[in-house]
Formats: sequence, structure tokens, C-alpha cells
Amino acid sequence: MKTIRDAIHGTIGIDDLSLELLDTPEMQRLRGIRQLGFGYLVYPTATHTRFEHSLGTYHLASKLGRYAGLSEKDQQKVKMAALLHDIGHGPFSHTTETAVSDHVNVVHEAQTVKLIKNSMITDILKKNNFNPNEIAGIAIGKKLPLGEIVASDIDVDRMDYLVRDAYYTGAAYGVIDLDRLMLTATLHRGKLRMKENGLSAVEALVFARYLMYPAVYQHHTVRICDSMLSAAIVECLEEGLFSVEELYNMDDIELISRLRLMTTFSGEIMQRLEHRKLYKRAIVIGREDLGSGYKKLLNLETEKLEGLQAELTEVCDLKQGEVLLDIPAPLYASEATAEILYKGKPTPIEAISPLLKALRTAQWSYWNVAVYCDKKNVENVKQKAQDVLLGFVQ
Amino acid sequence: MKTIRDAIHGTIGIDDLSLELLDTPEMQRLRGIRQLGFGYLVYPTATHTRFEHSLGTYHLASKLGRYAGLSEKDQQKVKMAALLHDIGHGPFSHTTETAVSDHVNVVHEAQTVKLIKNSMITDILKKNNFNPNEIAGIAIGKKLPLGEIVASDIDVDRMDYLVRDAYYTGAAYGVIDLDRLMLTATLHRGKLRMKENGLSAVEALVFARYLMYPAVYQHHTVRICDSMLSAAIVECLEEGLFSVEELYNMDDIELISRLRLMTTFSGEIMQRLEHRKLYKRAIVIGREDLGSGYKKLLNLETEKLEGLQAELTEVCDLKQGEVLLDIPAPLYASEATAEILYKGKPTPIEAISPLLKALRTAQWSYWNVAVYCDKKNVENVKQKAQDVLLGFVQ
Amino acid sequence: MKTIRDAIHGTIGIDDLSLELLDTPEMQRLRGIRQLGFGYLVYPTATHTRFEHSLGTYHLASKLGRYAGLSEKDQQKVKMAALLHDIGHGPFSHTTETAVSDHVNVVHEAQTVKLIKNSMITDILKKNNFNPNEIAGIAIGKKLPLGEIVASDIDVDRMDYLVRDAYYTGAAYGVIDLDRLMLTATLHRGKLRMKENGLSAVEALVFARYLMYPAVYQHHTVRICDSMLSAAIVECLEEGLFSVEELYNMDDIELISRLRLMTTFSGEIMQRLEHRKLYKRAIVIGREDLGSGYKKLLNLETEKLEGLQAELTEVCDLKQGEVLLDIPAPLYASEATAEILYKGKPTPIEAISPLLKALRTAQWSYWNVAVYCDKKNVENVKQKAQDVLLGFVQ
Amino acid sequence: MKTIRDAIHGTIGIDDLSLELLDTPEMQRLRGIRQLGFGYLVYPTATHTRFEHSLGTYHLASKLGRYAGLSEKDQQKVKMAALLHDIGHGPFSHTTETAVSDHVNVVHEAQTVKLIKNSMITDILKKNNFNPNEIAGIAIGKKLPLGEIVASDIDVDRMDYLVRDAYYTGAAYGVIDLDRLMLTATLHRGKLRMKENGLSAVEALVFARYLMYPAVYQHHTVRICDSMLSAAIVECLEEGLFSVEELYNMDDIELISRLRLMTTFSGEIMQRLEHRKLYKRAIVIGREDLGSGYKKLLNLETEKLEGLQAELTEVCDLKQGEVLLDIPAPLYASEATAEILYKGKPTPIEAISPLLKALRTAQWSYWNVAVYCDKKNVENVKQKAQDVLLGFVQ
Repeated sequence: MKTIRDAIHGTIGIDDLSLELLDTPEMQRLRGIRQLGFGYLVYPTATHTRFEHSLGTYHLASKLGRYAGLSEKDQQKVKMAALLHDIGHGPFSHTTETAVSDHVNVVHEAQTVKLIKNSMITDILKKNNFNPNEIAGIAIGKKLPLGEIVASDIDVDRMDYLVRDAYYTGAAYGVIDLDRLMLTATLHRGKLRMKENGLSAVEALVFARYLMYPAVYQHHTVRICDSMLSAAIVECLEEGLFSVEELYNMDDIELISRLRLMTTFSGEIMQRLEHRKLYKRAIVIGREDLGSGYKKLLNLETEKLEGLQAELTEVCDLKQGEVLLDIPAPLYASEATAEILYKGKPTPIEAISPLLKALRTAQWSYWNVAVYCDKKNVENVKQKAQDVLLGFVQ
Repeated sequence: MKTIRDAIHGTIGIDDLSLELLDTPEMQRLRGIRQLGFGYLVYPTATHTRFEHSLGTYHLASKLGRYAGLSEKDQQKVKMAALLHDIGHGPFSHTTETAVSDHVNVVHEAQTVKLIKNSMITDILKKNNFNPNEIAGIAIGKKLPLGEIVASDIDVDRMDYLVRDAYYTGAAYGVIDLDRLMLTATLHRGKLRMKENGLSAVEALVFARYLMYPAVYQHHTVRICDSMLSAAIVECLEEGLFSVEELYNMDDIELISRLRLMTTFSGEIMQRLEHRKLYKRAIVIGREDLGSGYKKLLNLETEKLEGLQAELTEVCDLKQGEVLLDIPAPLYASEATAEILYKGKPTPIEAISPLLKALRTAQWSYWNVAVYCDKKNVENVKQKAQDVLLGFVQ
Repeated sequence: MKTIRDAIHGTIGIDDLSLELLDTPEMQRLRGIRQLGFGYLVYPTATHTRFEHSLGTYHLASKLGRYAGLSEKDQQKVKMAALLHDIGHGPFSHTTETAVSDHVNVVHEAQTVKLIKNSMITDILKKNNFNPNEIAGIAIGKKLPLGEIVASDIDVDRMDYLVRDAYYTGAAYGVIDLDRLMLTATLHRGKLRMKENGLSAVEALVFARYLMYPAVYQHHTVRICDSMLSAAIVECLEEGLFSVEELYNMDDIELISRLRLMTTFSGEIMQRLEHRKLYKRAIVIGREDLGSGYKKLLNLETEKLEGLQAELTEVCDLKQGEVLLDIPAPLYASEATAEILYKGKPTPIEAISPLLKALRTAQWSYWNVAVYCDKKNVENVKQKAQDVLLGFVQ
Repeated sequence: MKTIRDAIHGTIGIDDLSLELLDTPEMQRLRGIRQLGFGYLVYPTATHTRFEHSLGTYHLASKLGRYAGLSEKDQQKVKMAALLHDIGHGPFSHTTETAVSDHVNVVHEAQTVKLIKNSMITDILKKNNFNPNEIAGIAIGKKLPLGEIVASDIDVDRMDYLVRDAYYTGAAYGVIDLDRLMLTATLHRGKLRMKENGLSAVEALVFARYLMYPAVYQHHTVRICDSMLSAAIVECLEEGLFSVEELYNMDDIELISRLRLMTTFSGEIMQRLEHRKLYKRAIVIGREDLGSGYKKLLNLETEKLEGLQAELTEVCDLKQGEVLLDIPAPLYASEATAEILYKGKPTPIEAISPLLKALRTAQWSYWNVAVYCDKKNVENVKQKAQDVLLGFVQ
């Protein structure tokens, strides 16, 4: 068994089949995709990649499968699905996603499925008598019960990225009792469940994510950079400089180098990003000021979102890309469905933990809708954007 | 400047005056008092002492004073108060406290004041033109504003012990962003306040304590051991084997070795503790089952508490010490008074943080009143204790 | 399987049989024996015990046995031997040893064997069809090949204590690649051998020990305390206050509390230790100044050593215990016998590693013979002790 | 004062002037240059950049200057020089260096000087009354005594990169007692010297580097990748696709994206690197087999080195770039000149430390000259390369 050294988990052993998957171009491309996109502009040490995160997720899936007593075959499935779960990400991960998608559809998951079912990976899986369809389903959390291990409220993906992101940002918030999470997971009537004595560890996991949200994932500087890059990508797509499919096959290096060469708005945006001439926040509106309308904004489909963005640009009398609307997804997009074995019965975690329930409310104190533009346009945009947005949600 | 190596904070520099204080018998006694009492029976690595905790608290006070911009003289006061803040603790810290006190009075604080005002320490302070009265007041958090640094909702004492206890138990919950806490503290109109951007760090601090409460501080095995030792101490005091004053001058070693030599009930308890023949939980009653009566239990003064314990013993038809009532203090005994500078104005932290507000409620899921006795008496005690307690609270 | 949390290794799983051993008084006594004796006087955080070290050694033995592919039965033997390997230590470990022994005989090993063969442990082993003789042999490294895992140049005992001591002292020197050491161990013709790619990890292990030697294990303050306590123990033994056998059944607490109560020289020594009124170094003689005579000193048997000490006391015109001769064991008492699989052939590590060879020489720069006494006698002792020692070695 | 979070050092405070330097394109370019070049192919988590290393070096320089008692002005000089010390590095740092240089000349240092003396940085320095010449001299360790802090045998550059590289590779070898190193540095007659009690820390620093050398810096896979990329760069330079000056202004992204687009040999090499179709080692010759001739190889100037490479290609009957000669610099290129204050007198460290002396010899066990080529040519190259090399050194 080959071993790989990892800064988080120490030594990771890779089985032969997973090693073969690891060596495919689809997996190797992830070496070029930074886990936190522009996060490194705020946290210089956050330069880690989806490749190492995938290895870490594989490692935890391997441990969890063993501890929970899965069959050998199921363990292998979960390990491979964990390793492959992120291959659908485009350059700068969530930025690419924002550029081509909305909060409702998750493009990178479809892309993951597509790649598992139609690439070198497919051949490797088939040759070893695994069903690519099934592995893909597990990888995106759709094929239950195994999918829960890789993608659910309490999954190995999240366990790895929270610990890893905390380590590389130096943010000190992501310390999670991985051992305890592993040891309290169990198979209950064919489903993965945490035992009751794992509740504190689950609370710590969710809390870590809650703290990482404003400090890292939704740091205002990162949001501005993401919005700018996203606008540049949108322009490129519209002008046919590359297709969505081509985009999803790039790594950060290719996207950056392409944008560097452009002489259009996209090229200018890239230059601004590299010289830190970032847009400023013209307005920031919290949930309270949006009334119940915040839901309307969160549920906007791509087309309508583009319409709102276009209206904003027009009202402000600016060119496309000069004023940017940013509606981030909330920390908890949906109700938590995770269940814990409480007095022997699967029970929703929020029914047991007042803390977790509280976090669902507390998250909104960190959520807001913002509009960005060049410093010189801030005054102009301030009032107009406010009107457009509040008008829209009423 | 002498330097001391600390497993938590790295190198700690000690100024000459503090070094003189450190070398007094009052401080050196703390080497023999384990920070977590019987915690090491659950977490074998939790053998750390109040001595090292005092050094760590000194270190953080020194940093905080400097960062917050205190005058040289005030910095020195705070450092010394931090170093001395625990000298009043008796052997096994909170166990001794439980034996001689109730939830309302805090004996070890009075003892700390007494020692600062009447020992070798007093002479050292006076010789260097410091007022022992003032230093004592700061050490127990009564003399404001400096006292807030050492003893308040967000103080250096708590910062050190949470990080230190987490480290030595291996509990992985106490990771706190000390740097951030230090850097966001500021003097506002003569008072120490956290700046708004320190809120996450404060939330993490309070959350760490919340998780450590059931996992360490109120772990059921630790509670049983504490109750047993406390009963042994009570017997010794009643029989005049040592006085409260003598007790507070012992370290763990002396208390243990004295109890080992006894042939009475106290000696038997000590033997049981050392051979892990621990009492069992006969009943455990949560807050909900106590109705509003839980407050009555929490506010019992020593005398009445002893009365209830005596009644319990009698009803169960057992001898003193054979059935033990355990009413732990809740995590948050009182309303948090800490304020944070929110939009420039001092604001209670719970008004800003829904999370902190939630923790106040959530703590009760971990709180309960319990009754312990020998395995063979469990069945007998079960029903009777329930009746006594529920009868009492109604 | 029960799990125990350890600050070093995270979660340690204990099999049922080992758990039974863990609960014997022989093992529980180790909770009261600090791993580094007086080390905590120099490093306040070094309060860890032989109990947790034994658990850690058990954990590493368990891992190594599994990785090296031992049979289930052999794995169990090695685990139990590792758990029990230190039960023969007296209070303050090496200090007790110094008081009753010389560099040639190792009393605590004989004591370990005795206890395994004649205590509650014996019954547990027999009941489960293990041969106490064999387990004892493995525990002290005499029964090969399994004994090598527990006690040899590269053993799990050393791996644990180096990492643990470094962690608790905060000395930062003991970082060792445990994963790599575990993974490169292999069974070669029935013997445990490291593979060639483990050489760096072995070098790091040995180097860590080399750095810990002057910084911790032979720190001059620790040596003075050890010599003082040792002299007190010698007096107690001579005066029949307790026997060697009783001594080896004490923990630190009992020894300290007994010495505290004494009114003789031993009691005075204890007081001095607790109030840090330590002896001073009158002379310190390095190997170079001893010529080839250093070997003579190192090979002194107990009786002759006592003779030299008595002569020293007499010449200085002092009472027994007022002047103390300290001849520490060198870091590498004997030639390293560990072999590594180099190009497939077992080869002595020092033949491959010029570094390890160099450390054997380098150690002498930290080794010296010293004589301690009260501050007021230093001038008197200085010249006389020099004469006695140099006279003796010529 | 702005603060930046760093995964290694925690919070780093940046003074205003250094912040201005940090925002220059010259510094920001370092965000795109990975510290360990292809190291991430062996250690997936080693994706850290020269940017964060520069910040870390700045941080340590700032601490050391303060502890050693430098004047305010000198502290500022040292901090800025530390921050700027790596701006001369080309993409993939040492690989670029290998492509354009030999072991005698250090191109990136000249480039650092050039940039400090002729860029936006120059203006910032002059405007604030600092002499760019002087800062450049300190940055490359030529202007003494301050230069010693940034570039010497025991400098803050090395302290940061060893700790950082160990952290990101997970190699566990680079644990260095930074506190101790900082605290034992002192100004002695205008020069920076370590005090005697810092010797262990220095030994640990040098030893960490010794272990990192084969495990990371000279790992055989990394060496093969470096040689391949270097050959591609050489071709590009020869064909005029970019100049040396343009090369040194690129970051990794630009170099990779340019090579990806090429259809020549360079493009093929890039493809092989990205798909891990790496050359193999045809021969590996250690120092012993080279006799005294190894010196001849190490001292080859660029021109003669190219001659030898050309001869090798010709004899093997291959095309340029198909067979690659790799002569790495030894760990210790020159005698250590660092001095330590030993008994108050500056003394060469190797005169005091037998260990450090031993490492100078021991390093050669890890050093070798190698020849790489495609798998299919290995057999052909094996004998011929041997002849060429041994012929050359005789």
C-alpha cells in the first residue's frame, strides 16, 4: 500500500485501486484548484488545493467505513466516491459556480457525475467491477445510505475541509474531534447514524463551520474578489471566449493566464485583482432590512438574477460589470436532516441540541446582500442600488 | 528577565518582582494542587497543576495589559494579581470548596485575599510600593476596572484554563484564538472592552467552556469522585481531625496522605477512590423534572443543604456519607455582564450574539442533580431519594 | 472496546484483557509517579505520570505489532508487556533507582519481573493462558524477538517518552515521526527490523534523545534535586525507616509525605527541596579532565561508590549527606545493537549513519561528574573534592 | 498596525512602511511562486508560497531585532530587508536558478538587489529616508552586521523556511525552538551572536535542515521534475521564446501556462510533468564512487557544465533534453562561519559542537550525481553515462 504524507492527517495509505484513480488527469487537475479561491488574499497561507482535500476526505471515509463496520465492498465504494467527490469543480471552485449558476442548481455536482460516468475513471471502475453510476451517486450524496458518509449534514467532506481550512488560514476555529466523530458513527438499520455520545463532537463541527463562515468563507474581501472574477467569467462566456464545458476543465492556472492575456473588461478585472485594486462595498443590506423579501432574493433563478443585475447596472448608468450584486447563500441553505441515535432512536439533531437550533438563527447576523463598484462610483451607486433592491423585494 | 518554558504558551518571561512572588511558599504550594482534581481518573493526562495555570494566567495578563495600553504601573498590578489569583485554593480545588461551602459563597476567594494581605507576599508587595488590598481586589475581580482582566466573563484566567485543560485532557474542544482576544481588547473610558471584531473569538471562548462542561468539568465520574472526597473531608472537619484553615493550607499530597492513614470512613473513601471502587448513580434528575424548583436547590445555603443531605441519609436508612447528594453549579451562575464595543457603544454580549444567548439555555441540557451510593444500595436509594428531592422542591 | 483520551496519541483503544490489567493496584500506583521526577521544578508543566506513559507505550506497541504483521497472540503479548513495563519503578523513578543501585544493576527491571510473576497481574495473565514469565521477559526486553519492541535501542517505550516528555516540558525537541517509525518496522527472519527508508526517522529519534539529555533528563537543577532526594532515601533505608521493598511500593505522594514528617536530615532535605533551597555545584568535571579514569567512575559498583562518597564526606569534614557526589549514566551506556535492513541485510545502524556514530562521541560534551553541597560549604568543598576525585581516577 | 494571520506564527503585525512594500507588484508576484517548486508532487500539501515565507521571515526579523536590542532604525532596516529578501526568485525558485546558473553564481540575489534598487520599492525606501543600496545589501547578507540576521548560517530566512516547509509537507522534521533562538541572540561588539545556552537550539536547526534535505529538498522525484523543467526552460531561452529577464519576472502560473501552449520539446516536457510521465534515474553515483573528482563536478562553471551535458547527450546518441545530468549542490556548500559566544568569546559553532561537525560529513551520504532519461532509454544511457562521468572526473 502506497502512503502519502498529509499535513493534517499524517500518513495516508492509498489502496491500489484508489491510487489508479488518483493518477487520472481528472484527479490531477485538482492540484491546480485552490480550495478557498481568493481566500489567500486575506489569509496568505491558505494556498491549499482540492487535491489534498480530496485525499483527506478519502482518508476519513476510509476510517469511518471501517469503524462503522461496512462490508469490504462498501468500504471501497465509499473511499472511491470520497476521493472523486470534487472532480466536478471548476477553477476557483465556488466562483465558477456563481458565474454559471444560482443557489438552486449545483452545477459542479452534475459535472462530477458526468466525469465519473464518462472518462478514464469510468474504465477503471468498470474494470474492477464497480458501477460508475453508483459511485457517482455516492459521491454527490444522492445514493443512500452510503452517500450520507460523503455528502450530508455530517459528512467526511465537511470534516476534512473545516479542519484543513482552519489549519491553512491559521484561523484556529476548525478544531474538531475527528476521532470522536469517527468512533461514534454507527450503522443503524442500514443507515449511518451518530451515537448519542457523539453529540458534543457534532456541535463542535457545526459551530466551527459557523465561525468559519464570516471569518473565511464569506469574508467581505473574498466576496468582492469572487464577484469581480465571476463577472469576468460571465463576460468571457457571453463573448464566446470559452464555453462552460471548457471552463469546467480548466484549473486556476489556466483561467488566470487566459484572463491575463485579455484586453477586454475581463482582462482589466484580472489586473485589478492582481494589483489589489478591488471594488468597494457601496451598500450592505442585512436580513432585517430586507424583511421577508430576503427569501425572494435567495430563491432567484439564474435568469431572474441576471435581470436584477442588469436593472441595477442600468439604473446606476454604468457598463456591464461595473456594479456587482452579491447575494451569498446562507450557511444553512436547508433544514438539517441529520439524525442522531438518541435513547436508541434516530432523532433530528436540532431536536436534541438547543445549540444547533440556535445556530440556524444566529447565522443571519452574518448574512447580507451587498453591491460593489469602483471607489469613484460608490456615492452614485449607494442610493440607487438601495432603491432597486428594496423595490425588488417589496 | 528570567524565562520559564510552558507547554501552552511557549516561553514566558517573568519580571523580577513577580519572580519574587513566585518563590513564596504560598505560590509554590500550588505545584501540589492539580487543576482538575480527579479529572485525571477520566483523562489520564490531565495532571496539570494550579501552579502552571497561574503562570499562564500571568503571561496572558502581561500580554493583555500591554496590548490594551495600560500604564506601566497598572500592567504590573494586573500581572501580579493574575499570578496570585489562585493561591486561596485548597487541595483538589473545587472539591475542598464543595466540602466547606455552598454555591453562594466563594471561600477560596476570601482565602486568596487573606493570603495576599497577610503573608510573605504582603511584605514583598509593600516593599515595592504596591497596596496588597488593591492587588487582592484585582485578583478576585472586585477592584475595577483592572479586576475585569483577571476575573470576569472574559478574563485571562478563563482563557488560560480552557486552553490548558483542553490540551491536557486531549479533549480538543478548548481551541481559542488567544491572539485575537488579546488584540481586540481595548481600554474604553477606563474599562476593558472587546472590540466588535473580537466577537467570534469571544463566542469561541464561551463555546469551548460549554463543551468542556459535560466532557470534563462535570463528567459524571469526576462528579462522583468529588462527592466522595468531599464527604470524607466533611467527616474530618466534623471530627476535628483538621480545621478549615489547616485544610486550605494543604496541597493534594498532604490531603491524600492524611486520608490514607485514617481508619475511619474517610480512610475507607480514600481507599475506594484509589482502587476505583466508586459509588454509582442512584438517580439523576434533570432541570425539567424539577420544575421551577431547581432554583431552590441552587440557592440553598450551606446549612439547609446539610439538612437536606441529612434527611436523605436518614430516609434511606444509611450512615453519614453512604448516600451523597450532588447539586452542581450551573455553567452560567449569573447573567453575563461582559460588554463589547458594538458600533462604538458598550453593549452586553448577549444582546449582539444570538449564539451566546442560546448557550445560556442550552447549558441546562447538561445540568442535573444526582444521588450516589454504593452499588449494593442503589435499588434502595433510587425510589427514596426521588421522593425526598421532588418533595423538597415542590 | 473502551477508549481513553490521551493528550499525545488522541484516542487509545484498550482491549478487555489489558483493561483488566490496567485496573490492578500495581498499574494504578503509577498514577502517583511523575515521569520526570523533579523535572517539574525546571519545567512547571512536566507533571505527567508513568501511568499515562504506560498507556502510550501500550498504544504504540499495539500499532507496531499490527503493522509488523505479528500473530494475534504475539500482538497481545507485546501490548500487555508494554503496558506493564514500568510497574517496577519506585517513587521519583530514577531517583529511587540511584539511591539503591549503581549503573550496572537495574533494580526496577527486577522489580517489574517480580510483580508480573507474583501479584494480581499474574492471576489475570494465567487465567487468560499467558505465561507471566514470558510477558515479564518481553517487558524488560530480555525475551527476544518480541522484547525488542518494548525495550531496545529503538523501542516503543522510548518513542512514547521522548514525544511525551517533549510535549509536557514544552522543550520542542522530541518531535519524532511516529507514523514513519511504525510503518517502516518489519519482521525479518523473526526479528523486528526497520526498513532502510526509516533511517531518517531513527536518526530523528536518537537526536531528540540527545537534545533532551542536557535540556531535561540531565538538567543541572534536576540533577541536584535528584542527588538530594537520593541522599534522603539512603538515610531512611540505613535507619530502617522503610525497607527497599516498601520503598518500591510507594508512589511519589507517599514518599513525599513520609519525608515531610521526618525531623532528621531526610526531613530537612525535603524541606529544602520544597522551598527551593537547593545545594549548589561545588565542582563539575568533564570527561576530558578525568582522562581515561571516567570509565572507572562509571563502572563503580554500589559498595565502592559508597566508599568514594564516604571518603569525600570525610575529607570535606562534613556530615553524611552534606556533600553529594553525582556520577550520571552517559546517554549511551552501551554500544547500539539496533540493526536496520540496509540493502536487504540487517546492518548495525551506526555503520550506516555517520550521524548516529557522531552522537555517541558528541554526548560526552554534556556529561560530567559533579559534587554538590550547601552554598556556605562550596568554597571548602571545591578544592578537596577535586583532589579526591582526580586522585581516585588516576 | 495591520495584522495578518499566518498558519505558522499566528498573528503577524505589519508596520505601515512594510505594508507599503508588501503591496508592490514585486512582492505580490511572490504569491504565485510556490516555495518548494515541484515538492507538491511528493507532498500534496506543500503548496505554500514565497509570499507567506517572506511575511514569516519579516516576522522573525522583527522579533530578533527587538530581542537583540537593535536601534529602532536598524530594526526597521532588518525587517524590510527580510520582507524583500526573496523578490529576486524566478518561477519555481531553484529550478529557474538551475536553468540559468551554476553552483558558483547566485542569480536570484543579483536580481533581488536589482529590484530593490530599481522599482517602486526604491521610491518607497527613498521617500522614507532609507538607502536602497543598504537594504539590498542586508537582504542578501552582504552588508554586515545586519545582513547576518537575514542571510547567514543561522538566519531568520532559514528559521522560517525550515519550520514552514516541515509544517506544509507534514514531514515532522523541522521543529525548531524559535523562541529559544530568538531569546539567545545578542549583539556582541556590533555583531549578532548566539549565546552559549542557544547551542542546542542551533543544533536542532541544523539537524532539521539535514533531515529535510533528502526527505524534501533533494527528494529524488523532485530532483527529476526540476531537471526536466530546467531543460525545458533552457530550450525556451535558447530559442528566444523569452529572455532571462522576462523569465525572472514571471510567476509559476505564467511559466506553466506558457509551456502548456508550446508545441516543441518544452511543451512535451510540461505535458509529461502534468501527467506524471517522469524520466527515470539511469544512474546514481555517490561521492565515494567519484573519488576526489566530486569537487570538480561541484565547481563546474555554467559553460563547462553545458559542455559536459552536451557530451553526455551526444555519447548517448539522444536529442537535447532527452538525457539530463543532475549535480545538486551539497547541503553545506561552504564552511560554516557562524560563531557562538562560548565562555564569552565568539567561537565557530563547529569547534564547540561535535554534532555539527559530524553533520558536515554525514551530509555526503545523501548527496549524489544522477542522470535521468525516458524509461525506454534507461538501459542505453546507464553504461554510457557512467563512462562519461567517471571519465570526466578522473
